[in-house]
Amino acid sequence: MVGKEIVVLRYGHRFVRDYRVTSHCCLVARAFGAKKVIIAGDEDSSIKESVEDIVKRWGGPFKIEFTKSWRKTLTAFRKKGFFVVHLTMYGLQLQKEEEKIGKNKKILIVIGSQKVEKEVYEESDANISVTSQPHSEIAALAVALDRIQQGKEINKRFLKSKIKIIPQKMGKKVKKRS
Amino acid sequence: MVGKEIVVLRYGHRFVRDYRVTSHCCLVARAFGAKKVIIAGDEDSSIKESVEDIVKRWGGPFKIEFTKSWRKTLTAFRKKGFFVVHLTMYGLQLQKEEEKIGKNKKILIVIGSQKVEKEVYEESDANISVTSQPHSEIAALAVALDRIQQGKEINKRFLKSKIKIIPQKMGKKVKKRS
Repeated sequence: MVGKEIVVLRYGHRFVRDYRVTSHCCLVARAFGAKKVIIAGDEDSSIKESVEDIVKRWGGPFKIEFTKSWRKTLTAFRKKGFFVVHLTMYGLQLQKEEEKIGKNKKILIVIGSQKVEKEVYEESDANISVTSQPHSEIAALAVALDRIQQGKEINKRFLKSKIKIIPQKMGKKVKKRS
Repeated sequence: MVGKEIVVLRYGHRFVRDYRVTSHCCLVARAFGAKKVIIAGDEDSSIKESVEDIVKRWGGPFKIEFTKSWRKTLTAFRKKGFFVVHLTMYGLQLQKEEEKIGKNKKILIVIGSQKVEKEVYEESDANISVTSQPHSEIAALAVALDRIQQGKEINKRFLKSKIKIIPQKMGKKVKKRS
């Protein structure tokens, strides 16, 4: 969190088809300092279980929730003072906006999958692109989180973890506690 | 490229199962300034076609190739003077190594999917982790490329594109040429 409260809203998750990509998005949100991911789309208990299992073993705090209405969620977060950043390849360049965005203490980042409704663009405070090229919402989320937190989230310490990696030049070293 | 020659070696692609994740990896490699991706695994013509279609429309230069032996590819690149960085959650912390890595003009980045053989760790010049937490090889690749190029790749201009996005505060603006 590094002094910020960041939540990620994943727009448009579909059963099975999006399982792996949405899982990656959730884990990226957690690893790069967000405190919660909210999924607008199919209520997929397998994703919820796998993310909660990661939090249980690797630490938190991190939550996963589902919403039936992205709109209600977005509006509720705006009311709570969150600055809403919608990541879209059509938006303004991250490199020009990241400093300004990073000044907000509370940020909701919206990432899409399939086609996003026009209203998401209109109801966001900023529409932001990471490279203006077609690539991956997972990558866009990671780089945006890294840059708006000025890279500080990479040193984040997770609480109540049962498993922790000790960085190695070669091979694997894992510390476990029961 | 931003003055660097970066190639990505994707280790362990499997037909169908890995299609979307490997596609994301390829597009991230291109968008974040690598000049080529080499896939060690199933020779998947659908991935090749979809990446080449992106290059044709959105510009390059960027190539996609397959190899039957990650080891031969890795050895060949080392002989050509490439510094080999293997991204693994068990490795040394990116934030401590990125400056040193970024001094190399030629870099081969190896990203895995399923379990990676021990020899990949041994034959790489550096085993590097992005956060030491479980997340996504797509995100790890993007953040590593962004950091070792000191963020400059985000301004990269692609050549011979037929389609280009004009960044907008809201909505979509695309410039096409035939």
